[in-house]
Amino acid sequence: MEANSHRYCVIMCGGVGSRFWPYSRADKPKQFIDFLGTGRSLLQMCFDRIKPIVPKENVIVVTNALYEPIVREQLPELDKEHILLEPCRRNTAPCIAWAAHHIFARDPEASMIVTPSDHLITNEAEFAATVQRGFEFVEANDALLTLGIHPTRPETGYGYIQIGKEIEPGILKVKTFTEKPDLELAKVFVESGEFFWNSGIFLWTAESIIKALHNYAPDLECEFKRGEQAFGTPVEMEFINEHFPACPSISIDFAIMEKAANVFVECVNFGWSDLGTWSVLYDNSPKNKDANVTRNCNLLAYDSTGNIFALLDKKLVVASGLKDYIVADSGDVLMICPKSEEQRIKQIVNDVQAKFDDKFI
Amino acid sequence: MEANSHRYCVIMCGGVGSRFWPYSRADKPKQFIDFLGTGRSLLQMCFDRIKPIVPKENVIVVTNALYEPIVREQLPELDKEHILLEPCRRNTAPCIAWAAHHIFARDPEASMIVTPSDHLITNEAEFAATVQRGFEFVEANDALLTLGIHPTRPETGYGYIQIGKEIEPGILKVKTFTEKPDLELAKVFVESGEFFWNSGIFLWTAESIIKALHNYAPDLECEFKRGEQAFGTPVEMEFINEHFPACPSISIDFAIMEKAANVFVECVNFGWSDLGTWSVLYDNSPKNKDANVTRNCNLLAYDSTGNIFALLDKKLVVASGLKDYIVADSGDVLMICPKSEEQRIKQIVNDVQAKFDDKFI
Repeated sequence: MEANSHRYCVIMCGGVGSRFWPYSRADKPKQFIDFLGTGRSLLQMCFDRIKPIVPKENVIVVTNALYEPIVREQLPELDKEHILLEPCRRNTAPCIAWAAHHIFARDPEASMIVTPSDHLITNEAEFAATVQRGFEFVEANDALLTLGIHPTRPETGYGYIQIGKEIEPGILKVKTFTEKPDLELAKVFVESGEFFWNSGIFLWTAESIIKALHNYAPDLECEFKRGEQAFGTPVEMEFINEHFPACPSISIDFAIMEKAANVFVECVNFGWSDLGTWSVLYDNSPKNKDANVTRNCNLLAYDSTGNIFALLDKKLVVASGLKDYIVADSGDVLMICPKSEEQRIKQIVNDVQAKFDDKFI
Repeated sequence: MEANSHRYCVIMCGGVGSRFWPYSRADKPKQFIDFLGTGRSLLQMCFDRIKPIVPKENVIVVTNALYEPIVREQLPELDKEHILLEPCRRNTAPCIAWAAHHIFARDPEASMIVTPSDHLITNEAEFAATVQRGFEFVEANDALLTLGIHPTRPETGYGYIQIGKEIEPGILKVKTFTEKPDLELAKVFVESGEFFWNSGIFLWTAESIIKALHNYAPDLECEFKRGEQAFGTPVEMEFINEHFPACPSISIDFAIMEKAANVFVECVNFGWSDLGTWSVLYDNSPKNKDANVTRNCNLLAYDSTGNIFALLDKKLVVASGLKDYIVADSGDVLMICPKSEEQRIKQIVNDVQAKFDDKFI
């Protein structure tokens, strides 16, 4: 048996990516798109990143039932049983609880990394070393470990983690989790050296997270507890389809991380972005000589700078006199919006839904 | 025999419409597009307008050989023999010379209206009355008649006709043809009441125009003269394919109208536009409440006014913070350009051709 055969990875892959509408659509959200023009979708990049770290047969993808075909198409190496299909959307805590029980039933000694599928990580070697270190820590301690990213700018779009005492080199007690700060506070956070970005990437043993769920989210845990006999058996999906919808819709941060006493942070620096907004995508992307960013298109720019053009099929875009816009085309929808107005996209999606139902969502 | 059975119409339909690139493409130029969102292309609208005026079997469409399939598709009522296929582009004079000889061989008593296929005429009843009057004039006189439009603004995009003595009510001698004026001069023209827009719509008998070609464009006429025995016979196309390419590329205005002594203008007022530029199209189109113009798309506009959106397939466009732009999408090309910069389109088309050959032209 390999040394890492008790190590698992849970890739959370059920999001709708509505902040990137219309480039990200309900039927093909952000994580399934070749968002960086690399030829691989964000999910595929996530899978590629994990493969050297945990055995392929220990990778679990949790997604919405809608996305089963696209996950199977994009990850043909993944066995069908390794795709957990949520019957409905219930945020991260129920997703993680299910995955933990599923894995625990298979391997009570399991440790696991839980990761979103739609983030960018630029230094994969550093990532692998970080995760290796994290596994060792959670396998030796009853600990809930989150990866905290060294902040490089006073970003207001992220949550922050305040660090406490260092337990082992690079691994510290968490003092507090904070919500997204305003710019002034974000500046203070970054200058203090005490705050790290909350990456939403976690490590723990299946046993530790189930225990934490039992202690801090008993309502949620009891839904899964009753299925103990079902996990890992042919009736697991039947049980999930019946009980998953009854779970509260709650994030793992809110349900567990902000409450538990055994929460630790590994402070890391592997070139991370949640790619959460167009502006972040712009900032994280290579620019051409006009400071424009292009995705899946050919650009001819005249007096046009600071734009991001995200299209399909290598479409030709000719832009004249356009500065700092998002131009996103998904085939049947074209959106042109200043980068500075991207908070309007949520309203736009609502308006489109009100006017056209789900046709363009 | 009907009263109008000697009356013919020549629809010139071979243009490439490059000023409307990329909405107008080499394989489907402006005249073949439902440019006004009426459900009929400009060519079809032209044909519909002519049908009450001349017998259907007397309508001749002259186009480039490339466009035979699209003309036949759009005008299924037209017999195949009524489509004259130019083997190459040689501007309007050779086109008209061929059509005149073709018609003369069939009917030496023919009179004809020659019209572009890509103009807008809003008052069709007035148009019909005007053309009726024009036919009567050219049938009674050896005259080359052009339709002059009452100018409604100091347009710098049109040629102007200076009027002379009135010969009959509404029909005047032409004093001069002028090139496109600058704005100051255009204002003077309009205020004088002596200048009319040159519509590029002509009436004459086949005999009169052939005589004028003989007198004022002998180089051109001699190319056709040698084919006298071929016109109206099965070898006409063979003759054209051999001799048409040898014709000089020259406009009928330059070859004949600016030189001939028997040129007259009928001053008319039927709501005309050559739809020659995006701005003209914008001005001639109904606006929605945000002063935006849409073609074949659904628009959601936020803080966006004065734009023209020309797309395909009822695509949804979401525009935020966009003022006075042209947004044109032809499937594989998207162009975003301020209306005020549309003279740049010619350069853009050149640049696209230099970079991608004909792929996107």
